[in-house]
Amino acid sequence: MAAETVSGTQQQSSDVTSFVLDNGLQVVVIPDRRAPVVTHMLWYKVGSADEDPGKSGIAHFFEHLMFKGTESHPAGEFSRRIAEIGGQENAFTSYDYTAYFQQVAPDALPVMMAFEADRMTNLILTDEVIGPERDVILEERNSRVESEPRSLLGEELDATLYQNHPYRIPVIGWMHEIEKLNRTDAIDFYRRYYAPNNAVLIVAGDVEAGEVRRLAQETYGKVPRGPDLPPRVRPSEPEQNTARTVTLSDPRVATPSFRKAWVVPSYTTAEDGEAEALDLLSEILGGGVRSRAYEALVVEQGIASSAGAWYQSDALDETSFQIYASPRGEATLQDVEKAMDAEIARIADEGVTEAELAAAKKRYVRSLIFARDSQSGMARIYGSTLTTGGTIEDIEKWPDRIEAVTAEQVRDAARRHLDQSRSVTGYLLPAGGDRS
Amino acid sequence: MAAETVSGTQQQSSDVTSFVLDNGLQVVVIPDRRAPVVTHMLWYKVGSADEDPGKSGIAHFFEHLMFKGTESHPAGEFSRRIAEIGGQENAFTSYDYTAYFQQVAPDALPVMMAFEADRMTNLILTDEVIGPERDVILEERNSRVESEPRSLLGEELDATLYQNHPYRIPVIGWMHEIEKLNRTDAIDFYRRYYAPNNAVLIVAGDVEAGEVRRLAQETYGKVPRGPDLPPRVRPSEPEQNTARTVTLSDPRVATPSFRKAWVVPSYTTAEDGEAEALDLLSEILGGGVRSRAYEALVVEQGIASSAGAWYQSDALDETSFQIYASPRGEATLQDVEKAMDAEIARIADEGVTEAELAAAKKRYVRSLIFARDSQSGMARIYGSTLTTGGTIEDIEKWPDRIEAVTAEQVRDAARRHLDQSRSVTGYLLPAGGDRS
Repeated sequence: MAAETVSGTQQQSSDVTSFVLDNGLQVVVIPDRRAPVVTHMLWYKVGSADEDPGKSGIAHFFEHLMFKGTESHPAGEFSRRIAEIGGQENAFTSYDYTAYFQQVAPDALPVMMAFEADRMTNLILTDEVIGPERDVILEERNSRVESEPRSLLGEELDATLYQNHPYRIPVIGWMHEIEKLNRTDAIDFYRRYYAPNNAVLIVAGDVEAGEVRRLAQETYGKVPRGPDLPPRVRPSEPEQNTARTVTLSDPRVATPSFRKAWVVPSYTTAEDGEAEALDLLSEILGGGVRSRAYEALVVEQGIASSAGAWYQSDALDETSFQIYASPRGEATLQDVEKAMDAEIARIADEGVTEAELAAAKKRYVRSLIFARDSQSGMARIYGSTLTTGGTIEDIEKWPDRIEAVTAEQVRDAARRHLDQSRSVTGYLLPAGGDRS
Repeated sequence: MAAETVSGTQQQSSDVTSFVLDNGLQVVVIPDRRAPVVTHMLWYKVGSADEDPGKSGIAHFFEHLMFKGTESHPAGEFSRRIAEIGGQENAFTSYDYTAYFQQVAPDALPVMMAFEADRMTNLILTDEVIGPERDVILEERNSRVESEPRSLLGEELDATLYQNHPYRIPVIGWMHEIEKLNRTDAIDFYRRYYAPNNAVLIVAGDVEAGEVRRLAQETYGKVPRGPDLPPRVRPSEPEQNTARTVTLSDPRVATPSFRKAWVVPSYTTAEDGEAEALDLLSEILGGGVRSRAYEALVVEQGIASSAGAWYQSDALDETSFQIYASPRGEATLQDVEKAMDAEIARIADEGVTEAELAAAKKRYVRSLIFARDSQSGMARIYGSTLTTGGTIEDIEKWPDRIEAVTAEQVRDAARRHLDQSRSVTGYLLPAGGDRS
């Protein structure tokens, strides 16, 4: 059943090489010879938004289970080996993908690939493995969410922002559903989604593409293709007609804050140039200390301790654009919310200047360059793009597409998408607090 | 394949008879000899909350398709026959059930049963049938929801109240999902849910149980059993930690109003006596012109044109308790909301008096008697109870269980369930309006 030959389309643009094994595994090789180190990342095209209703948390739960043992490698052996050779490892689960990551010396790449290919298919999933790990995850949820008012509010804000799409459900899963996840759920999930034809391998570092190809063939190439999966079509949002608020008052909150969110296109769903304009809008409005929000609320008016904006650009489906601020001194939450809203209105009404657009592009592209300057940052950009519907070409033309955005497009993005009557605002308040 | 014999448990309490055909159809006969009329209702244990994600509206769409033709009876023939004999018919879809209803002279019962049994299995579902009916439903949605700000707000309020359970999705379906419903969806739905073992037949009127049994056997008894369906377990709500609001400002709104909702137990999910206490709480707080809310806001303070409460008691899963009011004269929406909240707080703090509890029980039981006094009202009570997890015994003991509720239970229901910090409030405002 193992595919022994390498086939598929071959892409060669800049120095990045991509090919597909017979069993469907896409491999991307990113040369980076600055240091004797290699980043090996395996990305699965499955995340929490692919979970069945009522099974929230299984994608993240499964990420944990991947660190348990296989028939040939007992639990802990893979991690111990990485530690012994001074390497690093990690894993993360998001709405649209799950990724496993090791950073090691180049001569350890073959063994990383062997281990990673092994756990793609040979994991031992017994109740003895699953029960204790579920307890670990429940404890993780307790400490990260249940004891953090900000996280609790964030979860309910997301579930109020999205009313149909599974992005409304927290990646970690809801407590009452995690509690019920069992061996059958884990095995079904593993058999369905963990397969070479549902994965992308990114290898960045001091490696030769030809060598990576040979190694991939010897390791991952032996894993049989999994079931053909249907297109990743999730229920989409109905038209939004209302403004919504979500308020949490909690004695553990010392400083009030607010977040306001809108559902907007992602790079995958946007029309040409729209996601790029949203990226620059978030940069101009609230990307750091040179942004309009920070300068106005924190520096000039002195009413806020923080103020910013954030656009979750890489997502398979419609995503969110958010603003946030926290009052300082005598100012109330209502004061800072009004001031933020005024900054949005100013962009929607008057647009942005050519000078600030140019500066934002420069900062934005520079931050991309910084990300690329890190080997693992680079691997993450490729992995997240390729598992959310993008291509290698998309990544390579990204800076040019950012450069092409006009001031009108930025203004129009604010006008079209940041409508107050269709916003969803979360308020985090001290016990008994109010906004005014 | 047709089951020709009658079997199953037999229940005989009061005058109501119940039996189950070999193919799984439950039949309930309710004698009512006051007039020469019979109510024939077929209830399917499927509603919008059973729909697959992304397929909202298919349950209601299917209700429409049931009025199209079968191989032996072309479209319109059934309805024409009912009209010719001076009968009435109707159908309705809810979250948990779909029902078809005819009211005719007793001698027409056999032909009603034959028609209804025929369309349980022989419906012709071609694109020629489905396409035009989808247009009818889109138009229905346009006129009932899209052009009604109150309905638009109601939909988004429900989707904000329920964040995981399918009660968040409108029964009629979301526009963008109805648009995509097709023949495959309809056929899948029909084959899965329209079968004798997923239905309850209610026959009320001037009929003999033995005769109904013989007729049911001859008609429905010939329909083969459908697939065994899994238990109706839907995703349930996570713990709610926030207060939420949903606001719609619309030029079509003349008078502002608000609705506040909580997720509460239904008769099916409640512990002993809790649903009965919620029923009486809704009666005392806001059930008509003798209720506390009406007397306080409308009569005494004169600040509201309407004020009331409403408990959706019959539901398979956790359901909602709602209050509502609309300001009058100089009063603002905020004024009436505060006044309503004060009435709730008064019950939670001080409880209700024995006198008003006794009066509420009397009004409540009387309204049940009125409902039972109508033949179709009676049939509806049996149908909705039996398709949402209740039994005939539950219906018969209902008045006794209401009588047993104590003032403390009513107070505790308000304390436990009507918590302002976990409420979801909808505001309907004129264009540019606010709450103060």
